Amino acid sequence: MPPRPTPLLLVHGFWFGSWCWSEVIARVAAAGRVAQPVDLAGHGLRARRPACLSKRPFDPGEVATEVSPVADVGLDQAGDLLVSQIRRLAQDGPVTAVAHSMGGAVLTRAVQEVPELVAHAVYLAAFMPASDVPSAEYAQSPENADSRVAEAMRADPAVIGALRLDLASADAGYRRLLRAAFFDDIAPDAAEAAIGLLTPDSPLAMQTDATRLTRDGWGSVPRTFVVCEQDWALRPAVQRRLIAEADAAFPGNPTSVVTLDSSHSPFLSMPDQVAGILAKLD
Amino acid sequence: MPPRPTPLLLVHGFWFGSWCWSEVIARVAAAGRVAQPVDLAGHGLRARRPACLSKRPFDPGEVATEVSPVADVGLDQAGDLLVSQIRRLAQDGPVTAVAHSMGGAVLTRAVQEVPELVAHAVYLAAFMPASDVPSAEYAQSPENADSRVAEAMRADPAVIGALRLDLASADAGYRRLLRAAFFDDIAPDAAEAAIGLLTPDSPLAMQTDATRLTRDGWGSVPRTFVVCEQDWALRPAVQRRLIAEADAAFPGNPTSVVTLDSSHSPFLSMPDQVAGILAKLD
Repeated sequence: MPPRPTPLLLVHGFWFGSWCWSEVIARVAAAGRVAQPVDLAGHGLRARRPACLSKRPFDPGEVATEVSPVADVGLDQAGDLLVSQIRRLAQDGPVTAVAHSMGGAVLTRAVQEVPELVAHAVYLAAFMPASDVPSAEYAQSPENADSRVAEAMRADPAVIGALRLDLASADAGYRRLLRAAFFDDIAPDAAEAAIGLLTPDSPLAMQTDATRLTRDGWGSVPRTFVVCEQDWALRPAVQRRLIAEADAAFPGNPTSVVTLDSSHSPFLSMPDQVAGILAKLD
Repeated sequence: MPPRPTPLLLVHGFWFGSWCWSEVIARVAAAGRVAQPVDLAGHGLRARRPACLSKRPFDPGEVATEVSPVADVGLDQAGDLLVSQIRRLAQDGPVTAVAHSMGGAVLTRAVQEVPELVAHAVYLAAFMPASDVPSAEYAQSPENADSRVAEAMRADPAVIGALRLDLASADAGYRRLLRAAFFDDIAPDAAEAAIGLLTPDSPLAMQTDATRLTRDGWGSVPRTFVVCEQDWALRPAVQRRLIAEADAAFPGNPTSVVTLDSSHSPFLSMPDQVAGILAKLD
């Protein structure tokens, strides 16, 4: 009997939750592989929602000023939680950890802390920040200038401590923007169902905190980056910059690069391809 | 090497989605077992939301009258989808299928259709309807008269074709009711996070359709019922009636019964215990 493949830990990004991986899990589970989707700190079953977004009557002024109930969540808390999730799954040996979008910055922190527990780190259109560089620097970089995410913000993150989406908005243009930012290659009905599951506030501090990386820590773990070429949230040019910086910092451990012609959400638009990529990383 | 345990297919109930199983999966995955959470037809990534609940300004009259976008989803469609999900996971042998609440009626339909693919059917505070009896008969039975769910409905299901919750309501009493109905043994913050992930409309037809059961079909598959003793959604007296009727109809295959002193959501309040029960059904 061949050795069992590593278990997969699946980490979502800002606003998403464990729910986004179900179609990928269906495919890897059918092949007999253990896969576990988690909720990050401040997200999914750990989300806290601002009152303003469902106030009746609605007051746009409050949306712009109500301090987020997740404003206190930073990369230390998120990283500690992810490390504990990795530890639990790694009881019989190291795991393959897959992170999407801002989940990447949390994965980087966790891998730096417990590199011996991660056989492979997979970044799926994810932030893979260089040592001591906050993810915000990439989000706000010239390469990401035409990302559609900034336009969807409904408050100044520095004022409310979070990146806030008005997910219940009935404004047709705003809903088109949300779909175009995250789900541009998914049918509108399916995109709307996904929007209904997003968390409105994601903690700014997770994006402004940074991690110091070492060669024996994060730099020692094999990594794969899946570049999403039609990504309008984290633009492909940023994704390539992240890869280039990692390879410059740790030339002895270069990034394996795979590309998908997908939006920011290939786990929904191309679950077969995502599962196929993961199947090769056992 | 011992034989691998059966993979687990995890099926949520009305309003819930794949996200509700993440804490249980964390525990079974740590033990090396494959577990796959699915979204039912009309739920989670397959949900469709009525416009009225997020209209600004809000109009309670529309909430009571807007026909649900999932009114067309019945037990045939839901059962077909679940059968396809079981087939995919059962490629190397039968699965253990676990259903919560109204997921039980869908599981019963699927097991009747593909009994050879289900090694064990587990009903977790779930509808386990007798042959040709719609689940609505149990929901509306005298044994369920003090369930807190009916009071949370914001429209006549017969008018809109769905069971509608106003999940964004800012009314403190209504929010307490939602928490008390589904999450009475969970901290309010965690219950609110779960409420934020619920689907507002669940299709009435899934509750009014029925399945004809046979001894060689559903009646042939081993089953376990986990009675939740503090359940204010599906009252324990209904759960015990479901068990009694199944055992009367199929006396050669009696139900194994386990009890938990939990609310309707033990996957959130008692994930260790739920995982422990499943570990014994391999």
